[in-house]
Amino acid sequence: MSYVLHYAPDNASLIVRLALEHVGASYTTQLVDRARGAQRSAAFRALNPHGLIPALETPEGALFETGAILLWLSERHPGLAPVPGDPQRGAYLKWLFYVSNTLHPALRMTFYPDKYIGPAPADQARLRAGLRAPILTAFAALEDIAADAAWFGHGTGALDFYVAACLRWCAIYPGDTDRSWFDLRAFAHLTAMCARIEALPACAALIRAEGMNDTPFTAPDYPNPPEGSAI
Amino acid sequence: MSYVLHYAPDNASLIVRLALEHVGASYTTQLVDRARGAQRSAAFRALNPHGLIPALETPEGALFETGAILLWLSERHPGLAPVPGDPQRGAYLKWLFYVSNTLHPALRMTFYPDKYIGPAPADQARLRAGLRAPILTAFAALEDIAADAAWFGHGTGALDFYVAACLRWCAIYPGDTDRSWFDLRAFAHLTAMCARIEALPACAALIRAEGMNDTPFTAPDYPNPPEGSAI
Repeated sequence: MSYVLHYAPDNASLIVRLALEHVGASYTTQLVDRARGAQRSAAFRALNPHGLIPALETPEGALFETGAILLWLSERHPGLAPVPGDPQRGAYLKWLFYVSNTLHPALRMTFYPDKYIGPAPADQARLRAGLRAPILTAFAALEDIAADAAWFGHGTGALDFYVAACLRWCAIYPGDTDRSWFDLRAFAHLTAMCARIEALPACAALIRAEGMNDTPFTAPDYPNPPEGSAI
Repeated sequence: MSYVLHYAPDNASLIVRLALEHVGASYTTQLVDRARGAQRSAAFRALNPHGLIPALETPEGALFETGAILLWLSERHPGLAPVPGDPQRGAYLKWLFYVSNTLHPALRMTFYPDKYIGPAPADQARLRAGLRAPILTAFAALEDIAADAAWFGHGTGALDFYVAACLRWCAIYPGDTDRSWFDLRAFAHLTAMCARIEALPACAALIRAEGMNDTPFTAPDYPNPPEGSAI
């Protein structure tokens, strides 16, 4: 069983890449060329009608939504998450959904405020400013969970990869705005989680494939990818 | 195995109530009294640190996040969703996550814009106006899916209950704003789905428990609940 990951550098596809690498799944990649708006092409919309990256082709059809892909993979490949029937399953699911529907959308609004509030810079700045508190609240909640959960914070699970990507993006995007309100070091457990992820072979593969610096989660910089672009 | 559903009338807890009723699960309810701000109390935050309704107490601990609760229940009670290993599982998950992290957050921003853009009415109106297109796009995508999916649109699955609640809310909330942009009848398959849900014994139980009118999804009105309040 082999997969095809439709990706762009430093997009949410990096989370799926880490998961695929971590479980040793067989997969190939297909660049979605954002510079040409390929995520809005008919070919890509046939995989994901919403035009959002990532999409994962599987023997059961094309999947989209980062959280759904992670959960689906975790039901087929051991080691990514508590499986159905595990007494930790409910706790895992509630935090996975929380990251997917609270933290991740808040980041998406921060990166693409025009889609929600229109083109005026003042409106966009106000929306971004309003989102800082919910984003920091989410990281603080996840810091608490990382302190003692068996299924989060150890640097080896799908939710760890998801949250680490969110932390990375907060540190470097959007490039032209004040980001002094965010400091990874305020979250000791999440920092340790990021460092553990950076020690994984899966992370080395990500760094090579997407042109990232050596510390893409604890001290990220903009990528210099061999193909494609992040934005 | 019995559950405790912490609910408020016409809140997202109604989706979980429909699911519990539909599978005949043993459960009791506990009102979260929004008029007193009980969702922000220490007692409720011990169940859900984010202070959001619903929460479901289970033998494996308290769950929150509507999508997570529905998925967890569907892994224990047949008939709510394709289970792990089912070839439709991936398709189901991607649309469940989409509803949870795109449609539902857009509605939440429409209902509580002050949490995202501050107190100025003009800012709130602009954010609400910007959200109409993504909300209608989401319903249009779900209308397409309802046309031919085995696991959505037949009025008997957890995702059906989730989407029907979103349609209901768009029709009646917020009470003091223009809602002429939304018309359920523009979505024939979703209208049929809502009608099928209204024919279920689970829906009769919901109507009784939360004081809803006889057509809470196809032609909703404000509830007159025996206890508590929606807002």
